[in-house]
Amino acid sequence: MQRPLAYIITVGDELLRGDIVDTNSAFLATRCRALGLELVRTVSVRDRIAEIAGAVCEAATHGATVCLLSGGLGPTTDDVTAVAVAQASGRAVALDPAAAQIVAAAFERFAAAADGAGLVGQRARTLATSPENQKQALLPTGSVALANSRGTAPGIWVSGAIGGMDVVCMPGVPGELRAMMIDEVEPRLRERFDLTVSARRIYRTLGRGESQLAPAVERRVEAIREEARAGQRPAALADLVIRYRAAISEVRVTLEAERVTDAELATLDAAMIESLGAPLYGIGEDGLAPRVVDTLAARGLTIAVADSLGGRLITLLTACPGASACLVGGLVPYADAVKVAQVGVSAATLAEHGAVSAEVAATMARAVRASFHADLAVAITGIAGPSGAREGKPVGTVDVAVVDAAGEVTRRLALVGVREEIQHVGALRALKLLWDRLRDRGLAVVAAR
Amino acid sequence: MQRPLAYIITVGDELLRGDIVDTNSAFLATRCRALGLELVRTVSVRDRIAEIAGAVCEAATHGATVCLLSGGLGPTTDDVTAVAVAQASGRAVALDPAAAQIVAAAFERFAAAADGAGLVGQRARTLATSPENQKQALLPTGSVALANSRGTAPGIWVSGAIGGMDVVCMPGVPGELRAMMIDEVEPRLRERFDLTVSARRIYRTLGRGESQLAPAVERRVEAIREEARAGQRPAALADLVIRYRAAISEVRVTLEAERVTDAELATLDAAMIESLGAPLYGIGEDGLAPRVVDTLAARGLTIAVADSLGGRLITLLTACPGASACLVGGLVPYADAVKVAQVGVSAATLAEHGAVSAEVAATMARAVRASFHADLAVAITGIAGPSGAREGKPVGTVDVAVVDAAGEVTRRLALVGVREEIQHVGALRALKLLWDRLRDRGLAVVAAR
Repeated sequence: MQRPLAYIITVGDELLRGDIVDTNSAFLATRCRALGLELVRTVSVRDRIAEIAGAVCEAATHGATVCLLSGGLGPTTDDVTAVAVAQASGRAVALDPAAAQIVAAAFERFAAAADGAGLVGQRARTLATSPENQKQALLPTGSVALANSRGTAPGIWVSGAIGGMDVVCMPGVPGELRAMMIDEVEPRLRERFDLTVSARRIYRTLGRGESQLAPAVERRVEAIREEARAGQRPAALADLVIRYRAAISEVRVTLEAERVTDAELATLDAAMIESLGAPLYGIGEDGLAPRVVDTLAARGLTIAVADSLGGRLITLLTACPGASACLVGGLVPYADAVKVAQVGVSAATLAEHGAVSAEVAATMARAVRASFHADLAVAITGIAGPSGAREGKPVGTVDVAVVDAAGEVTRRLALVGVREEIQHVGALRALKLLWDRLRDRGLAVVAAR
Repeated sequence: MQRPLAYIITVGDELLRGDIVDTNSAFLATRCRALGLELVRTVSVRDRIAEIAGAVCEAATHGATVCLLSGGLGPTTDDVTAVAVAQASGRAVALDPAAAQIVAAAFERFAAAADGAGLVGQRARTLATSPENQKQALLPTGSVALANSRGTAPGIWVSGAIGGMDVVCMPGVPGELRAMMIDEVEPRLRERFDLTVSARRIYRTLGRGESQLAPAVERRVEAIREEARAGQRPAALADLVIRYRAAISEVRVTLEAERVTDAELATLDAAMIESLGAPLYGIGEDGLAPRVVDTLAARGLTIAVADSLGGRLITLLTACPGASACLVGGLVPYADAVKVAQVGVSAATLAEHGAVSAEVAATMARAVRASFHADLAVAITGIAGPSGAREGKPVGTVDVAVVDAAGEVTRRLALVGVREEIQHVGALRALKLLWDRLRDRGLAVVAAR
């Protein structure tokens, strides 16, 4: 049986005007990959009926099995995806009762949230029946409305829209798209198509570049392929593929193979842990912050943060559900006067070592550990730029410190990039120093999760 | 004369696998907009000759004047863009002497850099003549090689490649693409085509949805169009277009018109300020945070932040260059014990009103204003979820407070979304409360910037 082919169309003038980067295509592409759908093309078109309809027809011409659209489902006049899909598939649009219920349910959620917070929810209820919002319930005839747990616009599934190709429309708002794809679309795709996925395993590293990691990994993986060819490992591992994906500071090394089980791939963990070395912090989908939060919570350890670089070290932790189980609080001593008054950095230390120094980072960590009564503390200070550079300390100079009952460690980093990159990477690297400290003390392990 | 139409094709398996987000399309789209080239579509295809050539032919079918490609120009076997473009335009590929010089020049730069750093530069010089790198000088016959100031792959310009359409190929590495587009491609586009730019003006709002803003704006703009048709305004304003772009919590309303000057569009500010009302915070490209930071800095006012929701209110400010001119520091009292110890929230207040209450928000703001010796303070507390909801306070309940010498204001918000959305939107809305306070006191204005 031929593998089902996917085609993605993202809709919106803002995409063609360069006002936003199309992250929806990349998200959908990732999901297609994970589902085992082969993606042949992504297209972005403007909010024009003829252009959307044309792109949908071309998807069928290219032999797509399913065409995924995002955008153009909203309440305003420039949202025309439903009409365009109807036109492409030779259908009319009509008020869909299930879709109308999805719209009403969204406004009821908003109203209930307002009621619950002691505000006037009735305004949201009357909005549900406005002509603009009712328009979102106009679907191509014969289609199925998909629930939207985050917003007002229902999704649309048109089975066999053109020559057997299914057309699926989702909202353009990323949060709404993501939830609808995962909760509504993927289960139906799995049900409708015979999907097979190649096994993959992600090894996550921080602090070293792709070209530095690659040689040892490539050698090790080639040895594994050899062993597979020699019959010492499952034969399919002879076709093991390595992929590298470098994000800001983090490099993900992924192993992939078809006709291999996840368990067989997991047997390579020991080899990968050895060849990736210290930069490796974990295996699987989770980033570093949730691993830190869950590990601390599981050990019953509390943490405090002092962050003079901008606060990202705090938000990395608070972004994790359950952060309150370990994080007691944070301090952002931004002005030097606040460093002196709030974290007991002495004017002499500032004068001698400067605000960006291992001494100040360690002092800040000790201070918040004591004042917040935490088991551990992590601190960061640095020059995020564009101004602030001084002799011997260019923009990107960052000092991090971790303090616990057993002592303290500090590290100087020399980061490159613009302000936000330096703030973000600095925060990640501080978290990595904390993680390494926990590993050294036997409190954390490189695990699959 | 008809406006020149552009078509963008980005090439690379990694795009279709979701391994990277396609930022090149957005960059090229922005440049097209600024140049006055109308962009009709962007497409991403895999590294396959037939798929690239097919997309190029379709660009001509869609009436494109110029087709911009990125990616697939490198030295490895999966880089096939030059061959595909040759095929699509019925040409052969041949070694181009100018292209070979561009490749050689790149390796000479690397070698010189290596020499300069005391390393062995000779290896780079020998690399220039390797078959892989010579491959980059194989261009469709009759094309022009474009210099690459950042990397080794020459760009390619094929004039009248298909039915009068020009095809321009640039590297996929973002830094190389950007430099080549700006330095090599744009001057040639300006020379070759008669380009005019339409004026646009962005009105930025926070706190209300698109469907709530639209009716008043649509009425007002239709009245402006009427006045233009009646000769009371520049005639071109009769074709005024409104666009809405909803991001998280923020809605940008954009007015656009051709044959209108920026100054003429700016005369509509008063009408837009009136019809958008309180949600409008500014005009132009800048978001709220840099406006807050620069306004406070210009007034010589300092600010402190207390943030129990997660710290985003602090990072919104520290993300702005120059934040240290007004921000003295922030406190993240996450655990209740820290609220009591660090910001003087009494156990009685916590028991009576709960940690998420106007009373606690105001107390936190007063405390950090005093302890950080700031002119103003802003505070936020709330339930970001997924857990933490209680009777009368569902997930998304957020209280914000602003305190200054003149007094204090608080606001209760009922937000929807997942944890990160609630944290982000809550922070933006707190900043908006601060902005409104500054406006009420005559310290801030809705300005174009």
